[in-house]
Amino acid sequence: MSFNLATILRESRRAHPDKPLCHLGELSLDYRQVDELSGRIAAGLRGLGLRPGDRVAVQLPNIPQFLFAYFGILKAGLIMVPLNPLLRAPEIAYHLTDSGARLLVTFETFAEEAVKAAAEVKTYVVNTPGSDARPAGTLSFDELYGADDETIAPANADDTAVLLYTSGTTGRPKGAELTHFQLYMNCTVAGELFGFRPDDVGLAVLPLFHVFGLSSVLNVAVRFGGTISLVPRFEIGPVLDALERHRCTVFTGVPTMYFAMLRADTAGRDLSALRVGVSGGAAIPGEVLRAFEDKFPGVVILEGYGLSETASTATFNVSAEQRRIASIGRPVWGVETLVVDEDGRPLPPGPEHVGEIVVRGHNVMKGYWNRPQATAEALRDGWFHTGDLAYADEDGYLFVVDRKKDLIVRGGYNVYPREVEEVLYTHPAVAEAAVIGRPDERLGEEVVACVALRPGAAATAEEVTAFCRERLASYKCPREVRFLDALPVGPTGKILKKELRA
Amino acid sequence: MSFNLATILRESRRAHPDKPLCHLGELSLDYRQVDELSGRIAAGLRGLGLRPGDRVAVQLPNIPQFLFAYFGILKAGLIMVPLNPLLRAPEIAYHLTDSGARLLVTFETFAEEAVKAAAEVKTYVVNTPGSDARPAGTLSFDELYGADDETIAPANADDTAVLLYTSGTTGRPKGAELTHFQLYMNCTVAGELFGFRPDDVGLAVLPLFHVFGLSSVLNVAVRFGGTISLVPRFEIGPVLDALERHRCTVFTGVPTMYFAMLRADTAGRDLSALRVGVSGGAAIPGEVLRAFEDKFPGVVILEGYGLSETASTATFNVSAEQRRIASIGRPVWGVETLVVDEDGRPLPPGPEHVGEIVVRGHNVMKGYWNRPQATAEALRDGWFHTGDLAYADEDGYLFVVDRKKDLIVRGGYNVYPREVEEVLYTHPAVAEAAVIGRPDERLGEEVVACVALRPGAAATAEEVTAFCRERLASYKCPREVRFLDALPVGPTGKILKKELRA
Repeated sequence: MSFNLATILRESRRAHPDKPLCHLGELSLDYRQVDELSGRIAAGLRGLGLRPGDRVAVQLPNIPQFLFAYFGILKAGLIMVPLNPLLRAPEIAYHLTDSGARLLVTFETFAEEAVKAAAEVKTYVVNTPGSDARPAGTLSFDELYGADDETIAPANADDTAVLLYTSGTTGRPKGAELTHFQLYMNCTVAGELFGFRPDDVGLAVLPLFHVFGLSSVLNVAVRFGGTISLVPRFEIGPVLDALERHRCTVFTGVPTMYFAMLRADTAGRDLSALRVGVSGGAAIPGEVLRAFEDKFPGVVILEGYGLSETASTATFNVSAEQRRIASIGRPVWGVETLVVDEDGRPLPPGPEHVGEIVVRGHNVMKGYWNRPQATAEALRDGWFHTGDLAYADEDGYLFVVDRKKDLIVRGGYNVYPREVEEVLYTHPAVAEAAVIGRPDERLGEEVVACVALRPGAAATAEEVTAFCRERLASYKCPREVRFLDALPVGPTGKILKKELRA
Repeated sequence: MSFNLATILRESRRAHPDKPLCHLGELSLDYRQVDELSGRIAAGLRGLGLRPGDRVAVQLPNIPQFLFAYFGILKAGLIMVPLNPLLRAPEIAYHLTDSGARLLVTFETFAEEAVKAAAEVKTYVVNTPGSDARPAGTLSFDELYGADDETIAPANADDTAVLLYTSGTTGRPKGAELTHFQLYMNCTVAGELFGFRPDDVGLAVLPLFHVFGLSSVLNVAVRFGGTISLVPRFEIGPVLDALERHRCTVFTGVPTMYFAMLRADTAGRDLSALRVGVSGGAAIPGEVLRAFEDKFPGVVILEGYGLSETASTATFNVSAEQRRIASIGRPVWGVETLVVDEDGRPLPPGPEHVGEIVVRGHNVMKGYWNRPQATAEALRDGWFHTGDLAYADEDGYLFVVDRKKDLIVRGGYNVYPREVEEVLYTHPAVAEAAVIGRPDERLGEEVVACVALRPGAAATAEEVTAFCRERLASYKCPREVRFLDALPVGPTGKILKKELRA
């Protein structure tokens, strides 16, 4: 019963060692190279005394070293903790402490920020080609390469492979424990659903530190022996270049990426290899979907739904024939979903029966790292409570009505208001703060801070925004600050966001 | 991460509820019926107060009730303990006690024997159609049906689903703990290897209480939404009838079954649907394989290897192009094998490097039920020690030489019984042959041949010995030949050397 997720790499390498696994611009690496280089990282990690179950944090953009680190960590039986490169020092420190990471791999560009946070954690820096700039006290990623080593540590199927931090409904980020089995099943089931074949080339522009990119892009491609084209950040030029140069067949993205592709000038470009678009992260409007398919004939967009805790796909629209536009589809193989009322009772179909989506199956996390209470709240009888509101139609297709009450989805990124509010509350002039989303054409939602100042205190919108920028990743920062005399509160003193939104 | 093996039934039922899952003669049951009836058994078991993790023993031939019981037990989160219908009362008692089974499902024909054994275990009897004969104190299987119930109990991937008793090398039978994950992976990987498709019809004549029938026939068919034709025991007439009537495409069997098919008169029968033969349980001689493919054009025989503890497939010959005759093939997806010496060191390829096969991967059992010491001996660093002796060729194909325990050491020389048996089988008068060792003061062990002659044929011990001397080194030749009417065989047709030695 031993199973290590790194088996997906080893078996695809056995099947075709010389096939490219990833491209990055003009650079290509085949399956043998990625298997060997990740084996050397595994050897290096073992050599440092890391033992099965130890955590290693990785804060890298979509570059080949992400793959070496990821599969190396897995092969050594360690737990991978992917971190968003945009995190600021206090956030990095929190993640390292909470996960108990023994080692951090980061990138030249973020290294200064990381070093502020990771004083007690050995830090390895990946440099851009030609550079060897590193903050004092850090080591080069190249020093992590050990000797050739084919060993893959045996793991139980239910052992944790990845700790994926997510804020969930409330509070500070929690590490969702994703198991070897769960991640294996998810990429297998999802890849089959959108028909990923060994000759497919997936565009990997979704960040690999996020569950959507990690599972639905990287793992799917490796599981089925295909290829990915790495794009370190979403900019339309490089994306179009990658699609064209590597003849990508599968585009996996969030709606904002589809908007950008729609607006882009693609005249003279040969994007004819593209055959499927996988959309998730937020609802894709029907008009966008149709316009995209008109602009790129032969492409079908399939929308799915999932969360970090469901690693990643929970529901999916299987094909052009079976999909329902505006629906997130039906549960995938081996996954059950229910729409339940506040007491956990299943609701009948129909748009008038809106309830919370709960999910059970192979795709559900083991729990939140060191958070027994949060785990018990989220997982009841094996059912994961998503906090997302939806209804089902007669055929079991789910329609999400509202992404959780308070969650803001800005350009595909989750912004958790409480986290921003906690920063606002540390500002000396702020008495009360509430963060809400307001509709935005381009990004879906924009972050808005509603603030009441302390008596006699003064602050400008620019000042408040700058204060946030120092402490939070840019995408979380409010773009608009509204000053109110006092925030509306309910009987228990809770701020009423509903009224603020109205 | 919850996953119950019964998901394979539920998902195939969702995909095509009206498709036949099993035939038995003129009777057919579709996916909806099997899902519903097994759901009612699950409800009945829950109603009796059985709780997840409790064991239920099932002693049934290949009839639809086996499926209702099996999937019902899984759906209720219980552990299935399949028993060989041929067991005698003391053996049944041993299995019930060792597993701690709380309930026994048995068949009319075996019920008297079972009742002697199962005094303290509630016993439910499946009757033959039209009969309601049951020993006093037993209940009818029909009383186990509860109300309609769609519930599938959540299980962890690493939870035990089936306790499969196996004698292993020594001692009393031990219960190999096969997990939900392990059985799921095995039927998925094996079915993909022999290309099992939804329109395939598998012949289910291998006993379903045995891992080969359970995993490679029943689970494979259900996983891929195909059909099986149940044949309660191997008799050539009913087998040919089933193959013809249900247009079976896949024949899964042990070599003795292939022998019988070869000898059978099939004139006037339309067996043209048959496309693949899966062989395991023992080595299939190359001549038998070729003769079979000549007799049934369009059929390719693919040989694999596995044990109860590897549930079932560990290695396989993938296709007519890639197979090597007389080899058991190479490890399947996600499985590693090594050939190791007595100190556990991997041996290089080549027929001169015979060692024990060890297996690691998703297909290996969790351990032996309540046998920590036997488990520690069998599983070291995740490697299961098979007790089978083999060598590998340069391309990784494995060739089994013999069972470790069957090895005869005569005057310091290793004699592999299988090699001697292969010579004996080429003697025109020999129908069945088995070679065993008997204790010898001077040489340690002496070589003994046990032989059953073909009807009407005659041969003397001297003749047989002389025949061997012409073809084998002197130290390998039997010094004694025992003639028997028939050799004792186990449930899958394997010759029982244990009994011959006694």
